[in-house]
Amino acid sequence: MSRPASPGRADPAPAGARSGRPTERPGRSGRRPGTSDTRGRILAAARGAFAESGFDGATIRAIAAAAEVDPALVHHYFGTKQQLFVAAMELPVDPAAVAPSLLAGDPATVGTRLVRFVLGLWDDPATRPVMLGIVRSAASDPVAAGMLRAILAEGPFAAIVRAVMSEEPYATLVGPIGQADAELRATLVGSQLVGLLMARAVVAVEPLASAPAEVVVAAVGPTIQRYLAGDIG
Amino acid sequence: MSRPASPGRADPAPAGARSGRPTERPGRSGRRPGTSDTRGRILAAARGAFAESGFDGATIRAIAAAAEVDPALVHHYFGTKQQLFVAAMELPVDPAAVAPSLLAGDPATVGTRLVRFVLGLWDDPATRPVMLGIVRSAASDPVAAGMLRAILAEGPFAAIVRAVMSEEPYATLVGPIGQADAELRATLVGSQLVGLLMARAVVAVEPLASAPAEVVVAAVGPTIQRYLAGDIG
Repeated sequence: MSRPASPGRADPAPAGARSGRPTERPGRSGRRPGTSDTRGRILAAARGAFAESGFDGATIRAIAAAAEVDPALVHHYFGTKQQLFVAAMELPVDPAAVAPSLLAGDPATVGTRLVRFVLGLWDDPATRPVMLGIVRSAASDPVAAGMLRAILAEGPFAAIVRAVMSEEPYATLVGPIGQADAELRATLVGSQLVGLLMARAVVAVEPLASAPAEVVVAAVGPTIQRYLAGDIG
Repeated sequence: MSRPASPGRADPAPAGARSGRPTERPGRSGRRPGTSDTRGRILAAARGAFAESGFDGATIRAIAAAAEVDPALVHHYFGTKQQLFVAAMELPVDPAAVAPSLLAGDPATVGTRLVRFVLGLWDDPATRPVMLGIVRSAASDPVAAGMLRAILAEGPFAAIVRAVMSEEPYATLVGPIGQADAELRATLVGSQLVGLLMARAVVAVEPLASAPAEVVVAAVGPTIQRYLAGDIG
């Protein structure tokens, strides 16, 4: 921990520039830039490595090699492996934007829509490595476990459950007793969806792993529906 | 891999005995002996380490220290870390014995009985570390992932599903179409139960992590019931 890194913060004069390596200015924050710049290449390589090997298995050396940069540059941009993990694992999904679109439509099938949406995220090359990386790493790394905990307790599922609890026609569907269980409902949803990701993508147990999305949606959708708005007591 | 270990097989003249370390004869197979002998102490330490840190995080050195033996003795008894993992992660549960007791009783609540049984395994100090160790390690280690895959595809859930498919009154409940989905049903059951273990024990997301067993049984039992014998299409 004696390395003078500048973790979690872009640096206008990265070590790469000083050593003559071609790099763009990495000072932008917010949406990640494309993979044409060094910082983006490192993040993409990190997402691949964490998804493939989990936090413990991924190494800065391998990530640097995949990004075709010097390991020192990875440390310079992102600090420790754990800080790189947090930077790389940002899900490009805004829970506040997702909930309304899932809640619109037949209240009896919001669970089906949520399962279809999550399966879509796993099939999307932009989000799949992040989801895999977080789940794989959460099993052994406390920081990754904390990220998954926050996603399950405060992420999109919680936003949807909160909306179900407070907005018609869902609030009537759930009733006053169900509304007291909002956090339990959100974490039950998360337990089934994390287990589905484990079974399909991490452990790859057949026939669930290769089942068409709509088969999984039909099987798991009613489970999520019940956890969101059904009788769980 | 040049070490002349004798993996997966007990040795009547362990290195520990030659170096004067007190050890019992480890030649017994089948049921593991108590923790009073060296082999048992190593297995118990390994279960604790794999449950705590997963396969990647656990080290032979730490396991040897916890068992109060020399690391060379761990290698001598069990070979590589992966061979030690396989030896330590044997679940003391016989699927063939479990299924009949769960299937007896009201067919409409077999899912509830299965969830209660699995929660009981997690609360039992004899089985909890094994289940945690397998799930934590499966996320990053191929051998552990293979073990979890085998448990989900061929373990107790599959035995129960097979019985549900072939024995009355369950076979009538499921009908001929559901019987074609036996493997899918078993892996759906596994996905929810692995996700529940992840959420409760690995990630520890509240309020699910601390919810009383009967609250979880009431919430998740009907999910498992539907995966076992309900309409999943």
